[in-house]
Amino acid sequence: MDSRYVIGIDFGTLSGRAVLADAANGRVLAESAMDYPHGVISTELSGKKLPKDFALEDPADYLEVLEKTVSAVVKESGVRPEEVIGLGLDVTSCTLVPVDENGTPLSFLPEFSDNPHAYVKLWKHHAAQPYADRLKELLEKNDPERLHRYGDHISSEWLFPKLAEIAEKAPEIYAAADRFLDMPDFLTASLTGNFTASACGAGYKGLWDPETGYPDRDLITALHPALDGVLETKLRAPVVPLGSRVGYLTGEWAAKLGLTRNTAVAAGNVDAHVSVPGVGIAESNALLMIMGTSTCAMLVSPECSMVSGICGVIPDGILPGQYGYEAGQPCVGDALGWFVRNAVPGWYAGGEAGEGELHGILTERASRLAPGESRLIALDWWNGNRSILDNAALSGALVGLTLRTTPEMIYRAMIESTAFGMRRIIRHYEESGVPVRKLYACGGISVKNALMMQIYADVLGREIYVSPEKQAPAKGSAMYGAAAAGESAGGYRDIYAAAQAMADTTYRIYTPDPENYGVYDRLYGIYTRLHDHFGIEERSLMEELHSF
Amino acid sequence: MDSRYVIGIDFGTLSGRAVLADAANGRVLAESAMDYPHGVISTELSGKKLPKDFALEDPADYLEVLEKTVSAVVKESGVRPEEVIGLGLDVTSCTLVPVDENGTPLSFLPEFSDNPHAYVKLWKHHAAQPYADRLKELLEKNDPERLHRYGDHISSEWLFPKLAEIAEKAPEIYAAADRFLDMPDFLTASLTGNFTASACGAGYKGLWDPETGYPDRDLITALHPALDGVLETKLRAPVVPLGSRVGYLTGEWAAKLGLTRNTAVAAGNVDAHVSVPGVGIAESNALLMIMGTSTCAMLVSPECSMVSGICGVIPDGILPGQYGYEAGQPCVGDALGWFVRNAVPGWYAGGEAGEGELHGILTERASRLAPGESRLIALDWWNGNRSILDNAALSGALVGLTLRTTPEMIYRAMIESTAFGMRRIIRHYEESGVPVRKLYACGGISVKNALMMQIYADVLGREIYVSPEKQAPAKGSAMYGAAAAGESAGGYRDIYAAAQAMADTTYRIYTPDPENYGVYDRLYGIYTRLHDHFGIEERSLMEELHSF
Repeated sequence: MDSRYVIGIDFGTLSGRAVLADAANGRVLAESAMDYPHGVISTELSGKKLPKDFALEDPADYLEVLEKTVSAVVKESGVRPEEVIGLGLDVTSCTLVPVDENGTPLSFLPEFSDNPHAYVKLWKHHAAQPYADRLKELLEKNDPERLHRYGDHISSEWLFPKLAEIAEKAPEIYAAADRFLDMPDFLTASLTGNFTASACGAGYKGLWDPETGYPDRDLITALHPALDGVLETKLRAPVVPLGSRVGYLTGEWAAKLGLTRNTAVAAGNVDAHVSVPGVGIAESNALLMIMGTSTCAMLVSPECSMVSGICGVIPDGILPGQYGYEAGQPCVGDALGWFVRNAVPGWYAGGEAGEGELHGILTERASRLAPGESRLIALDWWNGNRSILDNAALSGALVGLTLRTTPEMIYRAMIESTAFGMRRIIRHYEESGVPVRKLYACGGISVKNALMMQIYADVLGREIYVSPEKQAPAKGSAMYGAAAAGESAGGYRDIYAAAQAMADTTYRIYTPDPENYGVYDRLYGIYTRLHDHFGIEERSLMEELHSF
Repeated sequence: MDSRYVIGIDFGTLSGRAVLADAANGRVLAESAMDYPHGVISTELSGKKLPKDFALEDPADYLEVLEKTVSAVVKESGVRPEEVIGLGLDVTSCTLVPVDENGTPLSFLPEFSDNPHAYVKLWKHHAAQPYADRLKELLEKNDPERLHRYGDHISSEWLFPKLAEIAEKAPEIYAAADRFLDMPDFLTASLTGNFTASACGAGYKGLWDPETGYPDRDLITALHPALDGVLETKLRAPVVPLGSRVGYLTGEWAAKLGLTRNTAVAAGNVDAHVSVPGVGIAESNALLMIMGTSTCAMLVSPECSMVSGICGVIPDGILPGQYGYEAGQPCVGDALGWFVRNAVPGWYAGGEAGEGELHGILTERASRLAPGESRLIALDWWNGNRSILDNAALSGALVGLTLRTTPEMIYRAMIESTAFGMRRIIRHYEESGVPVRKLYACGGISVKNALMMQIYADVLGREIYVSPEKQAPAKGSAMYGAAAAGESAGGYRDIYAAAQAMADTTYRIYTPDPENYGVYDRLYGIYTRLHDHFGIEERSLMEELHSF
């Protein structure tokens, strides 16, 4: 049998990267990354100052990165175009693009090129907060069950708040838009000519679910009168499940990318979500920790349970046929970075050490401490708490400081606190009826910091399977490309089969030390008391502090 | 009228210093300081390892420093010996000396020169803890009112625990000792030949009070059988009030010091206590903060009130005719020193900055922050809490840390936390019926750190009178020397008259800013919640942490 290849493209906030992998075993033959030429536009556009909390991008950036990185991996790998059977992609979400009836972004049109609302509204565009608040109120009154599924929280980053913002602030753009597309759907539509809405984005950011669809028309109209009927007009598009095929490359795009028109294009996806198959998770009730500056914890389970403080319990939202749960810790690597930049004394590394070197020395010295030796405990809320307290006004704390406290003690306590935070999240899942049976990790920290991973294993009292995959999202998207191509074309019947065949399963396994677990169990008891005191019972204390 | 002069000697833990001052106006003519030649003996003695928690000194050190510093100031000042009318001294306490029937320290005798229990047991000798615990139990059962006067706390540093330790661990020393003397009383007895017990040491460290005397004989015997009758034997000595005269210099000591036998010697005193007249406090209900590595807060009041968590409410204990109250914060300058050594990043001062320079830069940047701007609050318990919680297992905390927290924010929060701690102590006094009408400060921090003193004024909402006196204890002792000499000799009728005439009253006055006080009032509310939560309601949390 001939070789078959698939391509996955992962679009981040500042750059995109493509991988080309062997569909039979997942081996990566080529990889290409590129920054968006214009980057994030948040201060001014066409010489005009942007309002507060704006975060825009130029849709041309995405198309350019798509074309250049994919054609680069095709060329570099040396595979024949007809051997590439499928392509998948993932993007940050909700990243909204208004387009005209030809699918052309409105920002490409001369009359709108200096109108901020014609541009891509990035996930971290937060100017739609008033509409998020209003939407939450409306759901509380009229559709509390749906709200509950999103942990009783509506983010300004999501679809309807952003739509209402445009309807209110830029009626001319709202009127001119033939459709509003989430960026993954914009890209698959560009590639194939077929307009769809991926169930992942629709579910997590559009309040859609397979049983009841989007929220009620009246509720949407109540959010803003201009949105009346929007589901049938500007949002018209079939919702397609993850793992399905949107279509095949158009002739134009096949030529641009150096591929053929037989290349299947998978339904678009959200970046964190594709990492789940990307690291080889094809079972139920496995939790994946994606660990970097922040940690995103993805869980798939056949159980549907309302878990408070969790951002979305979405059927088919992460893997088809299962409920997807998403939780997060907004400050993990970032907290350690803050510490290294702001609190490590000059004498520590004997002078001119860089950040990386300081992390190394701190890690080495922290590794010589026994659990509990520092008598220090931290609350890991340097950037607020996302799960399960969902409170941005919370802040970090260090308790147990004495004249004998050393920098490495604080560093270790900060690592431990993020592990305690994760244990609290897992306990919350299990108390809510969603068992967590196996733990996976991927992302920069998981492969670089062995001490941290051992501490996690010791704190959580569980084995942790760390994926060797450096490009888990792009790899996961490539797997979706293989599923979109289907078995008959040399791909797979579904994403589960693709993940099982293509994932790199040479995991590094961290096993808990029973004695350390015992000590951490006691410390976790103290962490929990602090967590519940400052996060629940006396949460007004940090809220007041935050209000100064 | 001829000039009249007085000498004050302040014996610290590691060194002693003498001043010679004009009795008419307090002007200091000469000053001399000297380290103890042997210093603190805590690891080994005569080649033998010492047990844990031992802290001894050689009594010869004190006699040598006494002789050398006093003769130095006499010589340097150029005054005539007959013009020196009085001498006062203060020492750390309780610092116990066993002596034979000639008043010679047992450690001077060849047969005991290698016996640790023959040496001076310094205040910070903590090996008598079991006897302190036992004494507390006995008082709880048999004399609760007396215990209550010491804030329901008995320290291992005090007289009876140290006596019981010697009786138990070194019966040969206990038997050989004709007397046990607190160091101030040993020094005044050496100088005059008269054995007395100063009311200050007897009251604060010997559980004595003017109405009932020492604790009951049976209670002392119950602490250790060998102590039966000790009050009439090894502790026999009249208790003399502060401001009284023990006697005059012996011929031998007059010759050694270059003085005459007409020099009056005042009853010995405790170092922190003499600072009260030393800075010129001659009124009631004034609180003196002695601010250095730690802060000692001395309050005199005609009211006698049982104030829980305060180390001793002693009639005549600080100033004669008034009740003396002593409270403390065991970690003030020490906490800032810890911060500078352990938590200021290398880039902060651009390289090789010393500790003093870092304090300067931190202070300058912290002074540019508005109250509350850091959104950070600390608990000032890096070395436990002495007043009013009296719990050494408590530890420091920082609450409100974010990715925007800077080193100067933490530095300022730590300063503020010590000010909040002082406000809590003052509130406690007032709630207990002891009004605080005026605030004084002395000690290194009060003269060096204007930002800190302004923060104290703003947090406390009161004027603070900072004494310019650099040697407040030695100066206070000199005032006691003038009172001991008496009016007829050219001195004063009592310590109040001496303090009024001799104190340097060119105070630097810090006045609270009303706006800052308003902000701090809110922050103090948050501090109080943390204080009460971690110190009272949930104090087991830090105690558990401390137990690791």
